[in-house]
Amino acid sequence: MINGVATELISVRDRGFQYGDGCFETLRLINHHPLLLGKHIERLNRTCQLLQIQFDPETLQTELSNFIHNCTPSGVIKIILTRGIGGRGYSATKNVIANRILQYTEYPDKYSGLADLGVCVGISKMRLSENSALAGHKHLNRLDQVLASFDVRGDLDEVLCMDSSGYVIEGTKSNIVIVREGEVLTPDLNVAGVNGVMLNYIRQQFKDAGIEIKDRNLTLEEVKTASEVFLCNSVFGVWPVKKIVEHESVKMWQIGPVTLKALSCHRELLASVG
Amino acid sequence: MINGVATELISVRDRGFQYGDGCFETLRLINHHPLLLGKHIERLNRTCQLLQIQFDPETLQTELSNFIHNCTPSGVIKIILTRGIGGRGYSATKNVIANRILQYTEYPDKYSGLADLGVCVGISKMRLSENSALAGHKHLNRLDQVLASFDVRGDLDEVLCMDSSGYVIEGTKSNIVIVREGEVLTPDLNVAGVNGVMLNYIRQQFKDAGIEIKDRNLTLEEVKTASEVFLCNSVFGVWPVKKIVEHESVKMWQIGPVTLKALSCHRELLASVG
Repeated sequence: MINGVATELISVRDRGFQYGDGCFETLRLINHHPLLLGKHIERLNRTCQLLQIQFDPETLQTELSNFIHNCTPSGVIKIILTRGIGGRGYSATKNVIANRILQYTEYPDKYSGLADLGVCVGISKMRLSENSALAGHKHLNRLDQVLASFDVRGDLDEVLCMDSSGYVIEGTKSNIVIVREGEVLTPDLNVAGVNGVMLNYIRQQFKDAGIEIKDRNLTLEEVKTASEVFLCNSVFGVWPVKKIVEHESVKMWQIGPVTLKALSCHRELLASVG
Repeated sequence: MINGVATELISVRDRGFQYGDGCFETLRLINHHPLLLGKHIERLNRTCQLLQIQFDPETLQTELSNFIHNCTPSGVIKIILTRGIGGRGYSATKNVIANRILQYTEYPDKYSGLADLGVCVGISKMRLSENSALAGHKHLNRLDQVLASFDVRGDLDEVLCMDSSGYVIEGTKSNIVIVREGEVLTPDLNVAGVNGVMLNYIRQQFKDAGIEIKDRNLTLEEVKTASEVFLCNSVFGVWPVKKIVEHESVKMWQIGPVTLKALSCHRELLASVG
């Protein structure tokens, strides 16, 4: 659906296509409820402010309600906002109303059971782009993630991506949280990475339970020697990491108490719309 | 035109739209001749190798000939290649045949005379993304350039963009060449920037005339204290920089001998298809 109209065709002149001039969100749909919609709209809003694109959350929500009404009750919803057509070359018109693209896909079969069993994670050779202005934002420039995903092979469910200094930033489609020496840590996202909605949901739930998730630079060695590691995103929720594979070296974990707490936060979220 | 068919509509599921998963070229069209087409196709080929997208240069050239046949004889042609539809999320299918999008626009009126008069250049606040895997490639992730173009205001024709270390990399749509202490220099593009087709054309012409263009890190101070500065790209050719404006500070130049040589190389190129 584009701007409320049932179509999947867009002009190649749309700046989303020409330059990745826009942003997006991917949400879990449960019983016709898009999970954490308010938080996803907040993030769209922050990125639209950076890009100087206008969008009216109420219009988006109305279109989304109509769209969801015609979808299978559960699955995955993607919202894309772009600057539309206009400007000359890179030069953009500021404060135009965003084009709104809505898409539905089924929840991936291959994700079933991974929250219980844990996932197997590799290390990507692709280093993430560093840019403090774009860091944290879920914009449409996603070649880093596309190229890093080439390294998700064999029995790997995800790969970890580092910046050029060798700090672990995130997975291709997930944030990472580790437990080390009694601290719960997640990478600093000031120069690269996406400020995840699920990460922040868990952060808030943990905070309410008196557990602080601290942001700081994390080396791969620190991740590999953590006592617990889990991944999170808005689609699969929480994945305990049971194995990190790097060349011949394999590090394995049992699911620990902090990860169980994160899994339980996510289950409560699902139950709230069940 | 998309894949040889006269249309401007593409599926929003095309990965060019979803992730900027593709690359592009912008060429000057003179009397139905796309200038330096072979060099542009070489660069598409290099980026498609990085992205592991297949494309057949002969098919592209056939479609381009048909497309150009129906265009005004002179103007600007844009070629976009994308990975098309497929894969799951970021995970791409490798070695699929690229979607080929061709567009025509008129040569911008506002460029007229700038090669003779020289241009006025500002400094962008936006620092370019750093990524050694993507550097040099003209991929579809162009938010850096979109955001930097916000700073092209007032009587500025272009702005210079730096990396996070403060090295000058390029303009938003052009490469930069300077003359300093008898050396002809252009920024090292190993972590950011586009490896320009016009820059390399001029590099080769200069080399044939015994002048080497050296690549090295250049600070803004080195650019501002250069004896000559010019910009180049495939659309406008060569623009002598007559003025760099940064806050209240203004540095001015006359058009020098090396810049005149670059202008003459470009004029010869135009004449070759005139």
